[in-house]
Amino acid sequence: MKKIKVAVAGLGRIGKIHLTNLCQNFPELEVVAVMDIINESKSIADQFMIPKFEKNFDDLLAVPGLDAVIICSPTDTHADYVIKAAKAGKQIFCEKPLDLSLEQVAKTLDVVEQSGVKLMLGFNRRFDPNFLKIKSMVDAGQVGDPQILKITSRDPGPPPISYIKVSGGLFMDMAIHDFDMARYIMNKEVVEVYSRSAVLVDPAIGDAGDIDTALTTLTFEDGTMANIDNSRKAVYGYDQRLEVFGSKGMVKADNNFPDNHQHYSADGIHGSLPLNFFLERYTTSYLNEMAAFFKSIRTGEDLAVSGKDGLEAMKIALAALKSVKENRPVLVYEVS
Amino acid sequence: MKKIKVAVAGLGRIGKIHLTNLCQNFPELEVVAVMDIINESKSIADQFMIPKFEKNFDDLLAVPGLDAVIICSPTDTHADYVIKAAKAGKQIFCEKPLDLSLEQVAKTLDVVEQSGVKLMLGFNRRFDPNFLKIKSMVDAGQVGDPQILKITSRDPGPPPISYIKVSGGLFMDMAIHDFDMARYIMNKEVVEVYSRSAVLVDPAIGDAGDIDTALTTLTFEDGTMANIDNSRKAVYGYDQRLEVFGSKGMVKADNNFPDNHQHYSADGIHGSLPLNFFLERYTTSYLNEMAAFFKSIRTGEDLAVSGKDGLEAMKIALAALKSVKENRPVLVYEVS
Amino acid sequence: MKKIKVAVAGLGRIGKIHLTNLCQNFPELEVVAVMDIINESKSIADQFMIPKFEKNFDDLLAVPGLDAVIICSPTDTHADYVIKAAKAGKQIFCEKPLDLSLEQVAKTLDVVEQSGVKLMLGFNRRFDPNFLKIKSMVDAGQVGDPQILKITSRDPGPPPISYIKVSGGLFMDMAIHDFDMARYIMNKEVVEVYSRSAVLVDPAIGDAGDIDTALTTLTFEDGTMANIDNSRKAVYGYDQRLEVFGSKGMVKADNNFPDNHQHYSADGIHGSLPLNFFLERYTTSYLNEMAAFFKSIRTGEDLAVSGKDGLEAMKIALAALKSVKENRPVLVYEVS
Amino acid sequence: MKKIKVAVAGLGRIGKIHLTNLCQNFPELEVVAVMDIINESKSIADQFMIPKFEKNFDDLLAVPGLDAVIICSPTDTHADYVIKAAKAGKQIFCEKPLDLSLEQVAKTLDVVEQSGVKLMLGFNRRFDPNFLKIKSMVDAGQVGDPQILKITSRDPGPPPISYIKVSGGLFMDMAIHDFDMARYIMNKEVVEVYSRSAVLVDPAIGDAGDIDTALTTLTFEDGTMANIDNSRKAVYGYDQRLEVFGSKGMVKADNNFPDNHQHYSADGIHGSLPLNFFLERYTTSYLNEMAAFFKSIRTGEDLAVSGKDGLEAMKIALAALKSVKENRPVLVYEVS
Repeated sequence: MKKIKVAVAGLGRIGKIHLTNLCQNFPELEVVAVMDIINESKSIADQFMIPKFEKNFDDLLAVPGLDAVIICSPTDTHADYVIKAAKAGKQIFCEKPLDLSLEQVAKTLDVVEQSGVKLMLGFNRRFDPNFLKIKSMVDAGQVGDPQILKITSRDPGPPPISYIKVSGGLFMDMAIHDFDMARYIMNKEVVEVYSRSAVLVDPAIGDAGDIDTALTTLTFEDGTMANIDNSRKAVYGYDQRLEVFGSKGMVKADNNFPDNHQHYSADGIHGSLPLNFFLERYTTSYLNEMAAFFKSIRTGEDLAVSGKDGLEAMKIALAALKSVKENRPVLVYEVS
Repeated sequence: MKKIKVAVAGLGRIGKIHLTNLCQNFPELEVVAVMDIINESKSIADQFMIPKFEKNFDDLLAVPGLDAVIICSPTDTHADYVIKAAKAGKQIFCEKPLDLSLEQVAKTLDVVEQSGVKLMLGFNRRFDPNFLKIKSMVDAGQVGDPQILKITSRDPGPPPISYIKVSGGLFMDMAIHDFDMARYIMNKEVVEVYSRSAVLVDPAIGDAGDIDTALTTLTFEDGTMANIDNSRKAVYGYDQRLEVFGSKGMVKADNNFPDNHQHYSADGIHGSLPLNFFLERYTTSYLNEMAAFFKSIRTGEDLAVSGKDGLEAMKIALAALKSVKENRPVLVYEVS
Repeated sequence: MKKIKVAVAGLGRIGKIHLTNLCQNFPELEVVAVMDIINESKSIADQFMIPKFEKNFDDLLAVPGLDAVIICSPTDTHADYVIKAAKAGKQIFCEKPLDLSLEQVAKTLDVVEQSGVKLMLGFNRRFDPNFLKIKSMVDAGQVGDPQILKITSRDPGPPPISYIKVSGGLFMDMAIHDFDMARYIMNKEVVEVYSRSAVLVDPAIGDAGDIDTALTTLTFEDGTMANIDNSRKAVYGYDQRLEVFGSKGMVKADNNFPDNHQHYSADGIHGSLPLNFFLERYTTSYLNEMAAFFKSIRTGEDLAVSGKDGLEAMKIALAALKSVKENRPVLVYEVS
Repeated sequence: MKKIKVAVAGLGRIGKIHLTNLCQNFPELEVVAVMDIINESKSIADQFMIPKFEKNFDDLLAVPGLDAVIICSPTDTHADYVIKAAKAGKQIFCEKPLDLSLEQVAKTLDVVEQSGVKLMLGFNRRFDPNFLKIKSMVDAGQVGDPQILKITSRDPGPPPISYIKVSGGLFMDMAIHDFDMARYIMNKEVVEVYSRSAVLVDPAIGDAGDIDTALTTLTFEDGTMANIDNSRKAVYGYDQRLEVFGSKGMVKADNNFPDNHQHYSADGIHGSLPLNFFLERYTTSYLNEMAAFFKSIRTGEDLAVSGKDGLEAMKIALAALKSVKENRPVLVYEVS
């Protein structure tokens, strides 16, 4: 079997994770090139014995025989790179979001569609073993008709203010994973969004025009509902829980922990805090995500996450933002 | 020490609980009379060897030496009985709600205030050991500044449609406990309410003009928030959980269970369902509630639940109802 | 229905629990007299409005119309009181152990048998909701053939040395409950005992001729096994757990807790310690135990715990003691 | 830095795990050769692009520049291979046990000692994150003086009878991990062993001269104790738990699970079974184990598991076997 030739663009935190996973766990692939605008990243390429290190995306695309590209560069490059890769006929995996502008996203998806290549968005949480289990149970009818979905999604600490300023804000940067999860688990479209938000973690976040705490109510097309609570700072670590309530029962998933010890002292019972952040918590999901992408490429099966999924989650984020600004429930089509 | 002479009005489910608790656990009290409009209830009085059984409230109040009255009769008698008891100078414990009309509640509270007697409302959940523990931890600063409160409150099954029609609806009848809990735990007033609701359990509930499923967002005066999810039917039993998230941590309480066994079979791990409904789950809280009421009477200390608490919870319920009807966030003062 | 007339002998900790339960929860009974050798105990009698307070057991038995007696006096009086009560034709509930001498126990049981009255021993843990649940699951075959039983039984702290000296030692005083539980859960007789013990908590316990820590292996008649670990001092409170492993699965019961909160702070996750000691942990079992005794009296059904059960548990304790002294497995019939 | 050159002998289940880990996770190593007596195993070598595939151990040792060898071949080859590797001056990692004969083990360790190479035994469970956590807490004094250790160690199903016949029996093949764990956690030597055993899973195991169920009591040099329960068949999967009780508290570790979902249905609460067997449960420990071995080689630090550790665990297994045969506690020095 001929090996699939892959390139990785962008060697930041996520880029390194994908590169490591690709090199260690997929003997059917060959990482033939990586690209980063920073010279120092070449050492990463060397460590994994990648034949080519490029400094711009066009050169990466020009590597002979390239089949697929994994785009992990900054958000403002995503649309440009995706369009170029699509036009070059490469299969594309791109970290979310595709862009902060709905118009630009729509345009990019059009180009991808015309090109006939596959584009998968990096909603990695869909591939977490806990959420996969819940998804499969919901799909199998084990909670009956889902009526209420509850998502808890809290970060261990806020990113730097400099990042927040260009992030698109809490809804577009952080809650967008939860909006995607809501659509994924419930298997329905969201029609209305109401968000209440506050700046409770750090006034500097407010000064940067963003919020750090939010409660969001999503209403689906059939009148069922979801609630999402977000915070930029949970002092006890990364808090990622989910619960689906339905006509035949309820299923929920707790956080993941580094160990499962319980210590009984004269003061009480004590246990370890959850795995601290996404790199630790979603290790398996990042691996599963790559496996799903390359399986779709090999088999021609539908992608587990499509470009449209990115677009829909983005619309919900925009509706949430509008809801906060106008303090009213906002219909998703209002932002479309 | 002279025993406090108590009467119980109404011997339905709650009336019997209070009567049993008073007879078995409070040697410093003497239940001198009970009242019910149904003749058959006399047998309950006999079983507890209560000297007097009356069929109307005026006769109950006329029992010589009566100090306090426990009102457990139907909602539409509450205001009338409370006013009569207050004018007769009796200490009053009354099941919630005082009335379904805000005007009538306000008038009743005025009469009580002028009379100088104490009036405690039956928000029994405040006395549940789990919620007491959380309240004490929040008050002690163990979660820092509370930022998000989450309440799960689901009944095992809906009441009869005949009851639903006169109940005041899901918010006034069921969620009002959660609205009170939100004010109690957060120790702040609610200023705005947004509720999204649906009829997902039984269309007959919708036909009766009520809803059976709701997600409510409360905003407090300082911008912090609460989320409450209600359902009239959780097939796995009574689901009563609470979580407080704050700047220094998070504390949550799970359901109570009849036992704590875990069964490992070839199929999976299995445990018992939560205690089925309020009589089982809140056994201790009903007992603690009576103890708190009589402690206030003896010591002159402030009541644990005041008439104002009933009024505020009711306003939130009315705001929630208005929010559902108009699909917009409603300020609490709009319904005052 | 004529009320059963009951007397309670001994108003120490356990005596007060039984008296309170009898007065508050059994309208079909009438406590007509109590007895204690200490004058001050009369106030307890008065508090419960018991008509008669006696200072010796003969006077108690002479109370007219007495049907049953609850013996909660010190161990060295048990055999004497039981024999007197049996000869007087009273139904008997007696706290364990019947006596520290096997010979005396056998003689006492003979007298009881000839008298035709019922004698129930106070192995209250059989009536704990957790252990009842496990018993019913084992009996229903939900773990298949039971193969290994594990009991953890640790006290929060040792009793006074003065008590230890007259207690009969760790096996007879403390582990005897676990030996009874082993026979009860497995529904088989123990044929061999091996105990390894140590003095690790307090050298004064060793000086008093006792041990404070023990690991015991029980072998049942069919070759299946139990392990029991005992300690006189668990700094985190009363530790009472049980696990049954069998051909079709495993079932276990954890401790009981005063509440079920979980606190997540920057330091870890924290919860409440188990209920501290037997009065708190076994509240329900003491109540259920009395209910079972009087049910047997009323219905003529077999007792839930017989005199023979006391005898068998005692033999296991004696075999454990012999095993420690001789450091070898001891057959139960060796001590019979 | 020069890469360490490694060879793997034996490509069965464990051999493949080690080979995969070495190839994927240790860029500082180079697997230069593998050996297996079965021709078909060459495809594994090819899959990992290993330059050399040998069919006998002498040829493997002759590979130029070899630094270390990982021995995963059948038990009856271990002593022979270790001696050859030691004489050839290679660093050695060998799966347990070194041999089923104490004499042969002692002789082998002598050769290793004289050769000056390092020999690490494959007690992988020492490197499990849960047990590492407990070890570190015990070492840090968080349970005070350890008094009782309890280990639950049950396999999901028995191996084939053909394997059982050459395995050395339950104690030498399976419980030896638990004996090592007991010494490791308690940091003390075992002086006495008492085991009670039975054939409850499959009579064929008894016919093969082995047992399938055992309860073992270990006594340490200072009088503290451990209890181990073993079964060859837990229908609910691999059951690996541990608890340390001491003067200042208790710490325990539960099993690991594939996910942490909880499903509430009308029947009860349900969760996933533990990870099914050692390949799934101890994935991380196998990886950590290799890391520890190569760290010792690089740094010259003491090995995490020495040849003496293997010898001591083996003596306990032999004492357990003797205890079963003679039904008495056996001093470890009796089998030395």
